[in-house]
Amino acid sequence: MEKIVSLSKRRGYVYPGSEIYGGLAGTWDYGPLGFELRNAVRWEWKKRFVYSRQDMFLIESAILMNRKIWEASGHVTSFVDPMVDCRNCKARFRADHIDVSGGCPECGAKDFTEVRPFNMMFRTHAGPVEDSATETFLRPETAQGMFVNFKNVLDTMHPELPFGIAQVGKAFRNEITPGNFIFRTREFEQMEIEYFIRGVEWERQFEVWLSEMRGWLSFLGFDPSRVHEREVPADERAHYSKRTVDIDYDFPFGTSELYGIAYRTDFDLAAHAKASGADLSYFDEETRERFIPHVIEPTFGVDRTVLALLCEHYREESERVILTFPPRLAPIKVAVFPLLANKPQLVQKARAIYDTLRRVLTAGQGMLIAWDDRGNIGKRYYSQDEIGTPWCVTVDFQTLEDDTVTLRDRDTMKQERVAVPDLRAYFVEKLQ
Amino acid sequence: MEKIVSLSKRRGYVYPGSEIYGGLAGTWDYGPLGFELRNAVRWEWKKRFVYSRQDMFLIESAILMNRKIWEASGHVTSFVDPMVDCRNCKARFRADHIDVSGGCPECGAKDFTEVRPFNMMFRTHAGPVEDSATETFLRPETAQGMFVNFKNVLDTMHPELPFGIAQVGKAFRNEITPGNFIFRTREFEQMEIEYFIRGVEWERQFEVWLSEMRGWLSFLGFDPSRVHEREVPADERAHYSKRTVDIDYDFPFGTSELYGIAYRTDFDLAAHAKASGADLSYFDEETRERFIPHVIEPTFGVDRTVLALLCEHYREESERVILTFPPRLAPIKVAVFPLLANKPQLVQKARAIYDTLRRVLTAGQGMLIAWDDRGNIGKRYYSQDEIGTPWCVTVDFQTLEDDTVTLRDRDTMKQERVAVPDLRAYFVEKLQ
Repeated sequence: MEKIVSLSKRRGYVYPGSEIYGGLAGTWDYGPLGFELRNAVRWEWKKRFVYSRQDMFLIESAILMNRKIWEASGHVTSFVDPMVDCRNCKARFRADHIDVSGGCPECGAKDFTEVRPFNMMFRTHAGPVEDSATETFLRPETAQGMFVNFKNVLDTMHPELPFGIAQVGKAFRNEITPGNFIFRTREFEQMEIEYFIRGVEWERQFEVWLSEMRGWLSFLGFDPSRVHEREVPADERAHYSKRTVDIDYDFPFGTSELYGIAYRTDFDLAAHAKASGADLSYFDEETRERFIPHVIEPTFGVDRTVLALLCEHYREESERVILTFPPRLAPIKVAVFPLLANKPQLVQKARAIYDTLRRVLTAGQGMLIAWDDRGNIGKRYYSQDEIGTPWCVTVDFQTLEDDTVTLRDRDTMKQERVAVPDLRAYFVEKLQ
Repeated sequence: MEKIVSLSKRRGYVYPGSEIYGGLAGTWDYGPLGFELRNAVRWEWKKRFVYSRQDMFLIESAILMNRKIWEASGHVTSFVDPMVDCRNCKARFRADHIDVSGGCPECGAKDFTEVRPFNMMFRTHAGPVEDSATETFLRPETAQGMFVNFKNVLDTMHPELPFGIAQVGKAFRNEITPGNFIFRTREFEQMEIEYFIRGVEWERQFEVWLSEMRGWLSFLGFDPSRVHEREVPADERAHYSKRTVDIDYDFPFGTSELYGIAYRTDFDLAAHAKASGADLSYFDEETRERFIPHVIEPTFGVDRTVLALLCEHYREESERVILTFPPRLAPIKVAVFPLLANKPQLVQKARAIYDTLRRVLTAGQGMLIAWDDRGNIGKRYYSQDEIGTPWCVTVDFQTLEDDTVTLRDRDTMKQERVAVPDLRAYFVEKLQ
């Protein structure tokens, strides 16, 4: 794990948040390569779960919402962790993370308060007066944004059941003890789907979505032996859920939750209908019935996906370190090198290839093409392997004779000669 | 303006935030079409200012940052608006928005407190104890995330001056009086560039970036007569700026700031170097000099771009309402209709065309293709015009004979016959 954290910082994947000021616990900044990896994850997710379907609607709702939403959803009363204070040094701990009989980790005293619930929502005030009327929270999940817009989407897009509302966005949880790099953070990003169904079909739809999630995990290249589905027992489930399956991953620090899927029943829509007075029912034209839909919710964390990808694809070999990302997820798709930096003919030709590939490959989703003319070829390969670049193109003296380049594959380290005019088609095909 | 707000809600562009609970002032949710419009703006911006260049690095830094950052940047002391309280009814106002001699707008009394500064940053606490040690703010600008990562980007990407760090992300300002739809909101999204330069070249680089911004405004299709550049006088400039130009737009409610460009000198990097003790200098290999770079900052608001696009491209004609978005920005690129919904041959053929276009056009950046078989063709055209869909494809009886369709253009309303196999190339070319 230390190696992954170190590589992430050294190569521009993930930097500690507010680092030059000693950091801010539970926050991380994504560097240029980390941004591209996150963006590739988001884009592939949207392509798979939204754009390749006809029953899904993407929205972006605000992080700041009316506090009544969090009262109705149950978060004000139920979104809590158990907390104890040390009466001696006043330090505060998550009760299930320390052994109170062993004494306070800060001062050694054994004089603790009773265990009390701590609400994990970040509290703030919207408006110039700080009182209970303006108090609200940073959303701890994107889900409620979809529930409170259910009627808006229904009225403007006229979908028929079953259909889904999807959202990719930030959420905030004031974790008492954040940790394990980008695993447990106070600020994170979710990709969530609220899939609205008829209550009677929930068991079948749950299985359909679980299967969809398995397909996504396979696309990401995870070894099935490191992925585990876990039925969450009733006493561990969130207050709204009638069935939850956690999808756990074998992280270096232990097996922990990567994704989750929950059957939220009609809990949220019914609660908001009651609390707000809005009509959140659906009218079925065929059966002439009016009812409140039920919900299957597959949830995917962006940061945990990035962490699992880094862990899964990190390899050490005798002579090199590699990130074996699937090419479509790799931040940099192709690196272009002139064999020697001091031969203008090589540099000029390499630059032309670089410019062409950049123009062609970035035309769709943004793709980075790297340029490197420093040091020898071996060092450049090493550098690109370490950040997961699938292909390196080298312009050498033979290029000037027959218009071919050396194309080197990250995983096999095999080199082949490819004609320059064929490069574009080669990469386009590989990336499909 | 009312018409635009109404159309936005009715057709799934923008919904009021937390609407079913009576809203939350200064927050808005983006529906399926609004999401696509925002996404198109973000993507075209990145393509133009990041992916088509070699000197720009995209990062994503956290919204929650160490509060020392806001002390060093000057925001804790200087990011304020003038505020007065009514001593009678306790209501609070922005002093420059009311006429105190006329009495309090809420109760009529004329007994006000002295004008005091109100800090516009949202305050919260990161950690389980609410005290001064855990107090921090939601970022009021994305800029500081780039400044505090200047050294990280320098160390990991090894760029040479001049180069830029760019970011697209949320920022929060606790406006005393939000208003004018999505113009002045408490939660908004910025696209910002911090372009690091040698101090001596600031005047030239300022002009270069102003010119880049003009190019972007032209791409968005704004009538130049509605866009105004305004030199901001010294006493109106932010505390860090030596030159600021506001790019104002003639919104329906008045001429107001759309974008801005500021010369921030070396204020931020120097302030952070001093406050954090970090070395934020740049070493010039050629001149062997070490110095703190200066900064040109072009800033673009995502929400204001969306608002200006809606205002600019909204047209009323005798028989219809149109949004004349440039095709690359239109949320839905093509709508496909079977002439009659009850003729299986037409529906089947139209469905095949719809599926093909969807597969081809969504392969790059996500593009929506609409399907409509309700009502008559005239109503469908009306509906697509109102949301800005550039092209409609109708499968009719002639299609079954000669494999051509009716292609109808949004702006000219002209119809032409196009062979089905040519449709793909037609749209790909139009969208380039």
